[in-house]
Amino acid sequence: MQLSPRQEKIVEIVKRHGPITSHQIAEMLNLTRAALRPDLAILTMSGILEARPRVGYFYQGRPARALVAEELKKIKVGDVKGLPKVIRYDASVYDAIVTLFLEDVGTLMVVDSEGHLEGVVSRKDLLKAAIGGTANLQTMPVSVVMTRMPNIICTTPEESVLTAAQKIIEHEVDALPVVRPVAGKEKKLEVIGRITKTTITRLFVELGTADR
Amino acid sequence: MQLSPRQEKIVEIVKRHGPITSHQIAEMLNLTRAALRPDLAILTMSGILEARPRVGYFYQGRPARALVAEELKKIKVGDVKGLPKVIRYDASVYDAIVTLFLEDVGTLMVVDSEGHLEGVVSRKDLLKAAIGGTANLQTMPVSVVMTRMPNIICTTPEESVLTAAQKIIEHEVDALPVVRPVAGKEKKLEVIGRITKTTITRLFVELGTADR
Repeated sequence: MQLSPRQEKIVEIVKRHGPITSHQIAEMLNLTRAALRPDLAILTMSGILEARPRVGYFYQGRPARALVAEELKKIKVGDVKGLPKVIRYDASVYDAIVTLFLEDVGTLMVVDSEGHLEGVVSRKDLLKAAIGGTANLQTMPVSVVMTRMPNIICTTPEESVLTAAQKIIEHEVDALPVVRPVAGKEKKLEVIGRITKTTITRLFVELGTADR
Repeated sequence: MQLSPRQEKIVEIVKRHGPITSHQIAEMLNLTRAALRPDLAILTMSGILEARPRVGYFYQGRPARALVAEELKKIKVGDVKGLPKVIRYDASVYDAIVTLFLEDVGTLMVVDSEGHLEGVVSRKDLLKAAIGGTANLQTMPVSVVMTRMPNIICTTPEESVLTAAQKIIEHEVDALPVVRPVAGKEKKLEVIGRITKTTITRLFVELGTADR
């Protein structure tokens, strides 16, 4: 539930001074009681304030979890995305594993010679290839083991981090490439970042320590 | 959050005159804009003020982010932990890799014959072993490649998820075993669950959709 600035002010006042009459609130806000009435109605109906006859308004405790949800929805992928870690589609599986360790990431974005997204390769894909046994990791191209377009779950800078996190959970992946369309090339996507479970965990820590 | 007297004054000014530019605030306080900048940064980051480009500062009425932080701190590891996925310390690296795929997890807890925590083995550890080349994965015990006690970062059901997430980020691990002491056996820990980056991401999604 989105409160208006005036409703927020009313909540603050009741929190601090409650029990308080509508008359007193109106005075503090320099408003008439009539002007205040719709806001007070909304706040009591939503359960944020409680009105007791002949006593006044009490702060009931706001629906804190709804507020949290509201705040989380505001955060955009563009606010928190990390740098993309990429590898060329003609690199070997061995090169991909080495890059994974060097960059210390769990997922690499696979791109063509122009940097457009071709696929995504995860630690899991590479581990599967590594224990396959028959293949030569030095000569097998990474494109053989990657997940390829159009089966890649992507996100954009404008999307909410919440939606990106939902995609990660729903599709059981560790990372999403952050992409934007390439002008004049339909179906081609430029990789401009990544959102991973690490990004979300780090954001969780930042949000949880925002009051320090 | 405790505001300094100057920050209180700034809040008062923005409350009364907002939207107002930093230039105007500086003038009213007889300060330079440079002197004002740290205070404005704190007030906007804490969510008390909101800055809109080319318009100025608004009073937000409420440190929403502080509320979010408060709520996140309340969630305990015990509320969200997943089941532990374990393997015996004398299992082979190959068995560990197969278990990892079967259980579809990124990290396994390694336990002794009584189920007490001996180590932790990650996809990364196993991938490193798999490309080592020289060793036989079928005969090499997982205990050779795991991180072992007492170097394992653990958490408990009573700890906040926030603290657990901080440990994950700080120590650059994917998962923490949730443990409890074993009665009568000093230094022995029983594994009763796990917290991973997936747990945190799933929690983020739950919190973000709590108002639906």
